[in-house]
Amino acid sequence: FKDGLVFDDGSGNWKLQLNGRVQLDYRNFEPDQWKSDTFSIRRARFGGTFGFLKDFAVRVEGEYANDNTGAVGTTALTYGYLDFTRWPAAKIRAGQFKPFFGLERPQSTNYTDFTELSLATNNGAIFTSTYDRGVMVFGDPLPWLNYNAYVVNGSGQNNDDVSNGKDIGGRFDANFANLLNIKNTVLHVGASASQGNIGFSTAAGAGITQRTEGQGATFFSVTGLNSNSGTDRNRWGLETALAYGPVKFQSEYINANFERRQAGATPAFDNDINVWYADLNWLVTGESYADTYKAGSFGRLKPKNNFDDKNGWGALELGLRYSKFDASDFKSILTAPTATTAFTSEASAWTGGAKWIMNPNARIMLNYIDTSFDTPVRVNSKTSDREKALVVRAQYDF
Amino acid sequence: FKDGLVFDDGSGNWKLQLNGRVQLDYRNFEPDQWKSDTFSIRRARFGGTFGFLKDFAVRVEGEYANDNTGAVGTTALTYGYLDFTRWPAAKIRAGQFKPFFGLERPQSTNYTDFTELSLATNNGAIFTSTYDRGVMVFGDPLPWLNYNAYVVNGSGQNNDDVSNGKDIGGRFDANFANLLNIKNTVLHVGASASQGNIGFSTAAGAGITQRTEGQGATFFSVTGLNSNSGTDRNRWGLETALAYGPVKFQSEYINANFERRQAGATPAFDNDINVWYADLNWLVTGESYADTYKAGSFGRLKPKNNFDDKNGWGALELGLRYSKFDASDFKSILTAPTATTAFTSEASAWTGGAKWIMNPNARIMLNYIDTSFDTPVRVNSKTSDREKALVVRAQYDF
Amino acid sequence: FKDGLVFDDGSGNWKLQLNGRVQLDYRNFEPDQWKSDTFSIRRARFGGTFGFLKDFAVRVEGEYANDNTGAVGTTALTYGYLDFTRWPAAKIRAGQFKPFFGLERPQSTNYTDFTELSLATNNGAIFTSTYDRGVMVFGDPLPWLNYNAYVVNGSGQNNDDVSNGKDIGGRFDANFANLLNIKNTVLHVGASASQGNIGFSTAAGAGITQRTEGQGATFFSVTGLNSNSGTDRNRWGLETALAYGPVKFQSEYINANFERRQAGATPAFDNDINVWYADLNWLVTGESYADTYKAGSFGRLKPKNNFDDKNGWGALELGLRYSKFDASDFKSILTAPTATTAFTSEASAWTGGAKWIMNPNARIMLNYIDTSFDTPVRVNSKTSDREKALVVRAQYDF
Repeated sequence: FKDGLVFDDGSGNWKLQLNGRVQLDYRNFEPDQWKSDTFSIRRARFGGTFGFLKDFAVRVEGEYANDNTGAVGTTALTYGYLDFTRWPAAKIRAGQFKPFFGLERPQSTNYTDFTELSLATNNGAIFTSTYDRGVMVFGDPLPWLNYNAYVVNGSGQNNDDVSNGKDIGGRFDANFANLLNIKNTVLHVGASASQGNIGFSTAAGAGITQRTEGQGATFFSVTGLNSNSGTDRNRWGLETALAYGPVKFQSEYINANFERRQAGATPAFDNDINVWYADLNWLVTGESYADTYKAGSFGRLKPKNNFDDKNGWGALELGLRYSKFDASDFKSILTAPTATTAFTSEASAWTGGAKWIMNPNARIMLNYIDTSFDTPVRVNSKTSDREKALVVRAQYDF
Repeated sequence: FKDGLVFDDGSGNWKLQLNGRVQLDYRNFEPDQWKSDTFSIRRARFGGTFGFLKDFAVRVEGEYANDNTGAVGTTALTYGYLDFTRWPAAKIRAGQFKPFFGLERPQSTNYTDFTELSLATNNGAIFTSTYDRGVMVFGDPLPWLNYNAYVVNGSGQNNDDVSNGKDIGGRFDANFANLLNIKNTVLHVGASASQGNIGFSTAAGAGITQRTEGQGATFFSVTGLNSNSGTDRNRWGLETALAYGPVKFQSEYINANFERRQAGATPAFDNDINVWYADLNWLVTGESYADTYKAGSFGRLKPKNNFDDKNGWGALELGLRYSKFDASDFKSILTAPTATTAFTSEASAWTGGAKWIMNPNARIMLNYIDTSFDTPVRVNSKTSDREKALVVRAQYDF
Repeated sequence: FKDGLVFDDGSGNWKLQLNGRVQLDYRNFEPDQWKSDTFSIRRARFGGTFGFLKDFAVRVEGEYANDNTGAVGTTALTYGYLDFTRWPAAKIRAGQFKPFFGLERPQSTNYTDFTELSLATNNGAIFTSTYDRGVMVFGDPLPWLNYNAYVVNGSGQNNDDVSNGKDIGGRFDANFANLLNIKNTVLHVGASASQGNIGFSTAAGAGITQRTEGQGATFFSVTGLNSNSGTDRNRWGLETALAYGPVKFQSEYINANFERRQAGATPAFDNDINVWYADLNWLVTGESYADTYKAGSFGRLKPKNNFDDKNGWGALELGLRYSKFDASDFKSILTAPTATTAFTSEASAWTGGAKWIMNPNARIMLNYIDTSFDTPVRVNSKTSDREKALVVRAQYDF
């Protein structure tokens, strides 16, 4: 149970782990006209990982809540991969998986610091999809050093490639607290890079867009990028996380260069998007972030006392984040404003959060997200230079 | 096994229950032109419920058969909820679940009296969806008293809300046989109510419709309700079930008021739909309905003898139901007839059923449904004032 | 573990088997313009089979990768059936399942000789879908004799019927090596037949098409078959498999007659499609095909030595296949060529394959498929009379 819900045969020859999660959101937006207040299932998943003969594992997971637009619903494959783990310093993964870029994106969405990733790391203009298809090598050559390198379609979740070229990328990161043997501490730094093309598909359309952190308004949009030879997208990023006991500071910077060599519906360009965030988190009840750190990522937290029918109240965490999205290079080719919509190229957001971690498998989160736009944005005919969102999330997982 | 398929760790600290069901229908319709005779998968589901630390449970279930129109198929989340069950008199459920209204609708579709719910309680004009998203409190404050109260989107399964208002509702019910300590008997009465708006979404369209019980013709349709401020929908219902030994009588009445204050594509109106059904069931092999009753609902029946390779033949149940749908208030704004379609506002149906319950997990049902329409209905250019349907269903579940 | 991943209660009263599989393909095509090189998830599935009270079983399985066109994805029910297995010579299956026709099609896609079925047996013009809905009786009346007979919609996976007529069909097959008690040998012969109509649905469209074996170009297309009374489709086939120790020869011939009695968008016709394939496989590492044969089909292979961290290297298999598709009767009514597409009515393909079976649950396959067309085919404006495809597949299953 400590390692999740695992059935095994005692010999270590095979084991089956079943996984599931449900995240229920209540979201309240201002301006009211931009988006209806709603209960929403953010994620509902069920899947299994089967490990056999020590070195082999296969994982299948379905996302049952990726469509919030009607009764019929659609369900999508999230993870569908094969692992060969004989060599801890060079594990091989093939199939559909998360390519690891940066610090927040590889992290399980069960453990994120806030309800949603920052403007810098969320899916949108820079990262079109959480999952991709291909092959990855990853591992920990030294106890303090972690890396991965991958070749993927670059066309995103549940998508065959739409061009012959593939995306390549990688990340390496180190925890110097481990190297220097400093207890109760994380001194994490890392760098990531990838190159490829946008990989437009029918589903993704021929444009790039960005939404606010709270799943609210789409404030950035550039379209018509698909004609001719496509658009190259090269990304690099730096990351750090510094934790001592119950306090953690974390920050990432990412630069994405979009180069379009031939003019089509849109002129040729060589534009950058620069994004970054910094956040500070405090476990009021005193748990240590170092205990949750493993293989270059923060994971499941075990409260000192679970919320139970005796005296336990679980853990409490408070957090504050600033994030910045700057696509001002694209200002001149933004999707043109209409009577009902208008876009901008820069936004910044402050997020304040509180998290009640009742036990390792259950938590309730409260996030307030205040997003400011460089120039006013129009959605559903309502113009504003600011979006406020309140998100409450209840989450259980196994 | 008695309680289903449950894995636990012995300590009561965690358990996992896996659930699945397959219902295969063969349906035969008259008039032939209205609908092709077909084998159909009515429901095929797979999911799990994970309970941990006594008070917490999370359930995820996927419906694999909600689309019968082609090879690609779609799969939808049915249940995706979190339970906190510390207080039996006030359990809390958050996520996507069935809001409990009336007697038949909260019941598992594994145990319904007939293959489909009655004209009164089936999804259609009054109930647009089985599942909804929100929060519910429910429980049994006294052994004979059960209740629930909920706030939900009101926009149905797998749908975020399309308006800022939410639906609220509740139900309370009592079993006086339990209060009065009468053995082998159920004296159940209950009342439900809800208020909200229709909550039109893209998927649900801007109209209300009703089909016959046998999944046959759509005989009632009103469209164009979506303009301006939407339409309020307030519902109340009464229910009773009286069972003594192997005989059960059950009945529900529901009133739904639709009020539209502003004229749009459709004039303003204040219309009612009144529906009711009554049915009588008899377990020929002598099992008792009281044994299947719990928390305001009838559940799984255990035959006295399972169907086995010795002398067991399982249980046999016979049933008869009358149901009535009266939306005559809407008569003047029914969707206009065309050469191929025409609708009506009133229908009644007789259903005769036989059920062979081979064991607690397997059953075969035979239903004959004779539906009469107030005025003739036209479907696929064929006009008739009556639909006859024969449905055979084979069902296993775990 | 030898029989897969099974949980049971010791008494034989119930057991649950969980199943999953992931197949990752990398596909490279020539001409380049016909299809982008891509990583693709060919199959990702998760499901369970619950057996209870000895004679009853219910199976639900979801296919998570049947849509490769974008982030939202769709998931489809594959198996959703009920089994009653009291009589081994007449087991009954009801629901959505594979109707058994021929030798390759009933086989699990985990064990196929090549990455894809041959031009003769693959889904396309003759077999519109792997799965169908209905009822089947099957079994082994004698140890060397196997049969099945079915009634199904004939309209394919996840589809209700679109006509009142049903498809009926069956197959019987024998292994004379078993009858004559010849060890280490399979002398399999069989015959199949079915009759019904094409059963057009909205999803399947009103035409028949065929793709190359490597999931590449669609080279055959006839449209407009849906008007008036539909088109009858009657099929028969012969099959044989002769294996001695590590060598296996296998072949099937299928004739499909399409008869259209009334002219519509397309004139009336009475046309045949004739297809066949023959293949030769050699287990270089010496395992015996007879060990994998059971109930008229070849199944899971256990290498003499698994690939492990000692001296085991798994099994190696080499194979060669020729397959032929002849729909020349349809030549005059092929879909008319355009500037971007042109079709043909005959094709043949050579496939060379190598398979590294690391252990019973993991394998890597390499297939080279060279398809020649009778007349040049045009796809995406590029004309060629030949398609070359290289497919690498990694597969784990449980």
